Amino acid sequence: MITEIICVGNDLLLGNVINTNAAYLAEKCVYLGLSNLYQGVSANEKNRLSEMVSVAKNRADIIFITGGMGPTKDDITKEAVSELLNVNLIKNEKIENAIIEDYKRQGLQFEKNYKEAMVLENSYVLYNENSTTPGMILEKDEKIFVLLPGNPEEVRLMVEKQVVPYFLSKDTGAYYSRVIKMVGVTEHDVADKIKDLFELNNPQISTSAKTGEVHVRVTAKSDTEENAKQLVKPIIKHIKSLFPSNVYSSNEEETLEESVVRLLSANGLTIATAESCTGGLVAATIVRVSGASDVFKEGFITYSNRAKRTRIGVKKQTLEKYGAVSEETVKEMLNGTAKETKADVTVAISGIAGPGGGTIEKPVGTVYIGCYVKGKIKIERFQLKGDRNKVRATATSKALAMIRMCVKESLI
Amino acid sequence: MITEIICVGNDLLLGNVINTNAAYLAEKCVYLGLSNLYQGVSANEKNRLSEMVSVAKNRADIIFITGGMGPTKDDITKEAVSELLNVNLIKNEKIENAIIEDYKRQGLQFEKNYKEAMVLENSYVLYNENSTTPGMILEKDEKIFVLLPGNPEEVRLMVEKQVVPYFLSKDTGAYYSRVIKMVGVTEHDVADKIKDLFELNNPQISTSAKTGEVHVRVTAKSDTEENAKQLVKPIIKHIKSLFPSNVYSSNEEETLEESVVRLLSANGLTIATAESCTGGLVAATIVRVSGASDVFKEGFITYSNRAKRTRIGVKKQTLEKYGAVSEETVKEMLNGTAKETKADVTVAISGIAGPGGGTIEKPVGTVYIGCYVKGKIKIERFQLKGDRNKVRATATSKALAMIRMCVKESLI
Repeated sequence: MITEIICVGNDLLLGNVINTNAAYLAEKCVYLGLSNLYQGVSANEKNRLSEMVSVAKNRADIIFITGGMGPTKDDITKEAVSELLNVNLIKNEKIENAIIEDYKRQGLQFEKNYKEAMVLENSYVLYNENSTTPGMILEKDEKIFVLLPGNPEEVRLMVEKQVVPYFLSKDTGAYYSRVIKMVGVTEHDVADKIKDLFELNNPQISTSAKTGEVHVRVTAKSDTEENAKQLVKPIIKHIKSLFPSNVYSSNEEETLEESVVRLLSANGLTIATAESCTGGLVAATIVRVSGASDVFKEGFITYSNRAKRTRIGVKKQTLEKYGAVSEETVKEMLNGTAKETKADVTVAISGIAGPGGGTIEKPVGTVYIGCYVKGKIKIERFQLKGDRNKVRATATSKALAMIRMCVKESLI
Repeated sequence: MITEIICVGNDLLLGNVINTNAAYLAEKCVYLGLSNLYQGVSANEKNRLSEMVSVAKNRADIIFITGGMGPTKDDITKEAVSELLNVNLIKNEKIENAIIEDYKRQGLQFEKNYKEAMVLENSYVLYNENSTTPGMILEKDEKIFVLLPGNPEEVRLMVEKQVVPYFLSKDTGAYYSRVIKMVGVTEHDVADKIKDLFELNNPQISTSAKTGEVHVRVTAKSDTEENAKQLVKPIIKHIKSLFPSNVYSSNEEETLEESVVRLLSANGLTIATAESCTGGLVAATIVRVSGASDVFKEGFITYSNRAKRTRIGVKKQTLEKYGAVSEETVKEMLNGTAKETKADVTVAISGIAGPGGGTIEKPVGTVYIGCYVKGKIKIERFQLKGDRNKVRATATSKALAMIRMCVKESLI
């Protein structure tokens, strides 16, 4: 089935926002075995959106529309679709109540703005866990229209929890797709090692690079899902065997931090962090995981040298002799954090995220990352590419990968 | 003049690549005073691209096409445009020589693949400094077609050095756009207070909600940029006057955390953090800002009760009597952090991010956020919506907004 993705937003047409929703939905189409052939962007302007949806209706089976679903005047998506398809907008009580609740919670007088509570008649309403803006799925004229909010986080949550299950329950042919997630390897190396697989027609292989990670997707189609699965399975097994220490998950939903928390938790290990240039990002990423409290004890953000000395006992002469960004300092950060917190595992990071602070010996992007597991220490020096926040994000990903690797090795 | 941006790439339709070219070109259109009303993505498929260019030709004056310009079989952009517009492709000697040179440099035998050297007849050729893939500008049927490579860096270089000067020499009128960024107010409220402004035709007003923030964009067009600016300025001033304590910036690039760091830095104030449910996210957000080291001393991620007691002196009986998520605990976190770090400003957060841990009195989403400025303390209880990470992100944004507010009040 052919899909078209239309994103509504003056922000997109002005170039103020990069269209991550389109890429996210396109990826989900691959996962669902749907063929995304068209993507478009419309202004917050009813007639223009209507024109685009009208064209999409003629060439696609499923039309995704994101944005323009809120309560304000320039939110025109529901009205455009309602008029084009000749479907009434009716008030949804559950959303109406949520809006009233929302006003109450904020101590505001409710002003009878029911616009967000209006939904397309006979549509399957997608309730929003994060706000009062709903989504909806409408089947009309043998086409499926999926209306979603514009906020990328809300789109993700709604798609994972409601839209994907909806399509899976429809059985749109038999596709099967799996992803293998890896760390500690470049996309180039992965592509090179599996280059023969790219010649395959079914299953199809594609790679993509995320911060510090490489994902390989294997998608097959067949008459039944079981048969498609049988095409995918041996390829997954083969790829895993090529990268034994790099694969951290082949579970669609599982993030690197989730795999780390799962690993620690399964082995009854606790963790504490000591961060300089990442400024708390490693801890914050671990705490993203629901259930992190089982393993995460506490963290030190020792941004200043004084904090490194006072909180986790880094020696003054170590800082003076080797500098804050050094193997020696990271080693003392690891040991000091272990001593202070009694955690089984500690991770420490010190680096130069830039734009300033680089030297010839330690240019911007120099980051030392260390991991301590029950007394055993491993420290690596990395030379990371990109701007300040790219360096910090990559360092965080490398730190999580290192925790995973060191804990695994300690278990052998 | 109306523009349409068409990006060619199977990668985009598969969601493997985020479309940064569209956002970049859209931004350049604003800069050039061109009205980008349409954006689309096409597969590497001649007929489908041809269909899209044909539609674009009917509704836009200027059509930008990126991608599909290389030497391989799936590079179909020039062929599609050539056939659609009935313009010959002719060999360009300069590019041909560059290709031969390139083969030589790599020690390869030249295989007479002149595809990249073919350009649209009578077009203005855009030579590529980074590769042999050219771009070109063709004026035909009173429309302008701008063909560019797909590589974002090559696009940028070609646009800055060749395409922008081309359009500036044509003088196409001018746009001016400004954004006002606010915290501590809902999109509903903003839209309601400025609803009259939505009636305006020029400048145009649009609102958008980010996590914990509301942005209002004001865009005007006129004959010169200066005249467009004169239309925008009074509206900006008016909106600012309606939300005196909510506006944190009207600078396109400035984030909330940047405005906080700037405010602290300008007043010679230092800051330290104590976080529970946010797990370091507030500190990590502050450290995003280049120059954060001028103001940020250190942070405590006191996730466990033991950490709250040991690191920042929260009393055992306070935790027992009021619980970790309470005004009393946050107060002691603020004071303890100030005492330990000697920072002028401290911020502390304790809450229930979920999905577990909620009670009737303190359901999931209950978050206490406090700020200390030179001995003066303010603590607020929030009831935040959404899943674990939405609660944590919103709490972070609220904390930054509170720092800003408390510091501002301390300066009066």
